[in-house]
Amino acid sequence: MGELRVRSALVTGANRGIGLGFVRHLLALPNPPEWVFAGCRDPKGQRAQVSGHSPPHLASAEVTDPASIKAAAASVGERLKGSGLNLLINNAGIVRANKLDNETLKDMSEVYMTNTIAPLLLSQAFLPLLKKAAQGSPGSGLSCNKAAIVNISSNGGSIKEVYLWEGIQAACYRCSKAALNMLTRCQSMGYREHGILCIAFHPGWVKTDMGGDFEDKVREFLAKSVGGMLKVLSNLSDKDSGSFLDWEGKVMAW
Amino acid sequence: MGELRVRSALVTGANRGIGLGFVRHLLALPNPPEWVFAGCRDPKGQRAQVSGHSPPHLASAEVTDPASIKAAAASVGERLKGSGLNLLINNAGIVRANKLDNETLKDMSEVYMTNTIAPLLLSQAFLPLLKKAAQGSPGSGLSCNKAAIVNISSNGGSIKEVYLWEGIQAACYRCSKAALNMLTRCQSMGYREHGILCIAFHPGWVKTDMGGDFEDKVREFLAKSVGGMLKVLSNLSDKDSGSFLDWEGKVMAW
Repeated sequence: MGELRVRSALVTGANRGIGLGFVRHLLALPNPPEWVFAGCRDPKGQRAQVSGHSPPHLASAEVTDPASIKAAAASVGERLKGSGLNLLINNAGIVRANKLDNETLKDMSEVYMTNTIAPLLLSQAFLPLLKKAAQGSPGSGLSCNKAAIVNISSNGGSIKEVYLWEGIQAACYRCSKAALNMLTRCQSMGYREHGILCIAFHPGWVKTDMGGDFEDKVREFLAKSVGGMLKVLSNLSDKDSGSFLDWEGKVMAW
Repeated sequence: MGELRVRSALVTGANRGIGLGFVRHLLALPNPPEWVFAGCRDPKGQRAQVSGHSPPHLASAEVTDPASIKAAAASVGERLKGSGLNLLINNAGIVRANKLDNETLKDMSEVYMTNTIAPLLLSQAFLPLLKKAAQGSPGSGLSCNKAAIVNISSNGGSIKEVYLWEGIQAACYRCSKAALNMLTRCQSMGYREHGILCIAFHPGWVKTDMGGDFEDKVREFLAKSVGGMLKVLSNLSDKDSGSFLDWEGKVMAW
């Protein structure tokens, strides 16, 4: 089984949760990337701090603003000094826990903007750097060690299963994640010729109903989820591009 | 095999194509509905004319404007004089034939608005009339003769198949239709208790590459597609709600 070895990675929504987990786990790899860019809306803000580890490079990007995305890509490109970007992890996402009856145009639009349109725009903006990474890597075939777009989706985006409907309806979220899965498929078709692998992940959920210390549970969840996804990423090849997998590598239903 | 027998139906995007086809075919049924509402952006416009048939009732609605949708629902409710609406056919849709590389925020947003958010808002606005139709119909179980939401989707929305990628990339369209399929599933879960059946259709495509007269081909296509969908609708029951079918009733891959 391989081990993830990349020179550079960028994670959006890196100020907390799964995004922050990715930054920490990447920096803690046996062979950590030279460059880990933590994308945050406001990198000067308190919440952007990653303490207790080698500091990541911060990348300021408001993912709902195309100009901000382009500026972030330009800045990252400059700092990479001519080398490419191996991993783009589109993690930033939002949810509105509406019932179907009170779902609104505003929430549908805003959630789609952050969860679906932003990953499209980010991938477009970072495409030249991803291509460069793919071209600069030896060997044929797709691999996350060369270049990959990783879209953090959800089992909530599974049209077939409609998981957990009784607990949370959130049509705005479900529609945005089904659309993100479709985007991942489109990207896998469009970017294959550039040597870029594309994947959608269901990262799992924190089980908060089991009592005990919540922070411990979150830490345990992130170790399993993010650790699992990084392990899965290290083993992906051509045949996996365009798939929807969970954090253990299990194929999810569309 | 049953035959569709409804008192009332509303079709959005009824000024042309499949929407106009639905209006004509509904009015030409052996037992036509008493009320066929042809929803158009501008019912006074030339394109809204349905000539050579019993005239439908026109319903003015700009499907991207919540206030316009609510006004249309109020107007239809008044004209139905206390009876409900059996069939809501969400047909209005748009496409932008962009390549993945030049897909834009604007096109992603606008196509999602018309193809995904509008069917949500229309269903919410007409829900009281659909409920009334369901409550006023005899027998138990779901049926299009009682109350149904019919979302016109597309094989372009199949995440698994990514049909015809080489011909038309149109990620904006594919994402919106995958999301519409998810919305259909959500509606089937949310509206089952109200006795409303929900379905997504792939209506087929006009084959324009076979030579001959184009108008003839379109007429032939509409007869097959719309005629087929009305036949399929007449046979749906509980188990079918939340499905994605083609115009012949074949189950499509999500």
